[in-house]
Amino acid sequence: MNTLQDLFLDALADMYYAEKQLTKALPKMAKAATHEELREGFEAHLTETEGHMQKLERIFEIFGEEVRTKRCPAILGIIDEAEVLMAENKKSPTINAALIYGAQKVEHYEIGSYGTLREWARLLGREDAARLIDEILAQEKAVDAMLNKLAMGRINQDAQSEGMKMAA
Amino acid sequence: MNTLQDLFLDALADMYYAEKQLTKALPKMAKAATHEELREGFEAHLTETEGHMQKLERIFEIFGEEVRTKRCPAILGIIDEAEVLMAENKKSPTINAALIYGAQKVEHYEIGSYGTLREWARLLGREDAARLIDEILAQEKAVDAMLNKLAMGRINQDAQSEGMKMAA
Repeated sequence: MNTLQDLFLDALADMYYAEKQLTKALPKMAKAATHEELREGFEAHLTETEGHMQKLERIFEIFGEEVRTKRCPAILGIIDEAEVLMAENKKSPTINAALIYGAQKVEHYEIGSYGTLREWARLLGREDAARLIDEILAQEKAVDAMLNKLAMGRINQDAQSEGMKMAA
Repeated sequence: MNTLQDLFLDALADMYYAEKQLTKALPKMAKAATHEELREGFEAHLTETEGHMQKLERIFEIFGEEVRTKRCPAILGIIDEAEVLMAENKKSPTINAALIYGAQKVEHYEIGSYGTLREWARLLGREDAARLIDEILAQEKAVDAMLNKLAMGRINQDAQSEGMKMAA
């Protein structure tokens, strides 16, 4: 029999695992980026991601629980897909567009998950935990906006025009 | 050497695979839901998902390509996670909250992916394809809003208060 608090703590363990995986994936994505602002964006988000793990640790503490992780097949699949995208576009003018595509899948996944977690924390009467989740959520949304801005700016156009030049 | 069009067609094949997997997962989610409006929502989205596959087929046609699928590890992971959530909360008052959590992970993943696909279609000069993707995107966002509305309405509160009653 699961209560909402069990469900919340399980989802927290799942996101803790997800953030941990991302600390391993982001350096690879930064290394693969050939667009400087994008590379810097990945590097800055790595530092934020480490901060998210610390915030999740504090939330476990608020609930009087030991920090735990739970294997998150979703993030493993999303990272697997991002790695396939990286490999397939490695030497192509599409590499940065492909990296942004993979990274936005990660961000949207996290935004969806943390949105629910924040509501559950509130229902469980833990406004302090909800605020911490809100801080994480704001950073995930900012990364998504940064990726959108880069994509709209030049990265996609470059992928398109370079590709056409090479095909010509 | 990948061009933006290659990347777009690959991502299209990936989403075609994802939608196909969802046509198998949604009936299970509908069956597991004990909240009527949620069950009906999953059933209605199954019909929409079949429509998304047809729209994706038309986009392949617009690009003069055969319909193809590409194994999408991300959606497999997300569905795997939703199934674990279903199993763990099967006989608990948290079942509907858990189903919404799993479904929102799916919707956010799709919203992230289709947002990029729409921009790529535009850059490739295919406004007709971009419009079809926009129609899919609007339905995914509507499902996410429906899930939010149900979650905010009673489902989460029920999960919380029933759980507390049972613990008492």
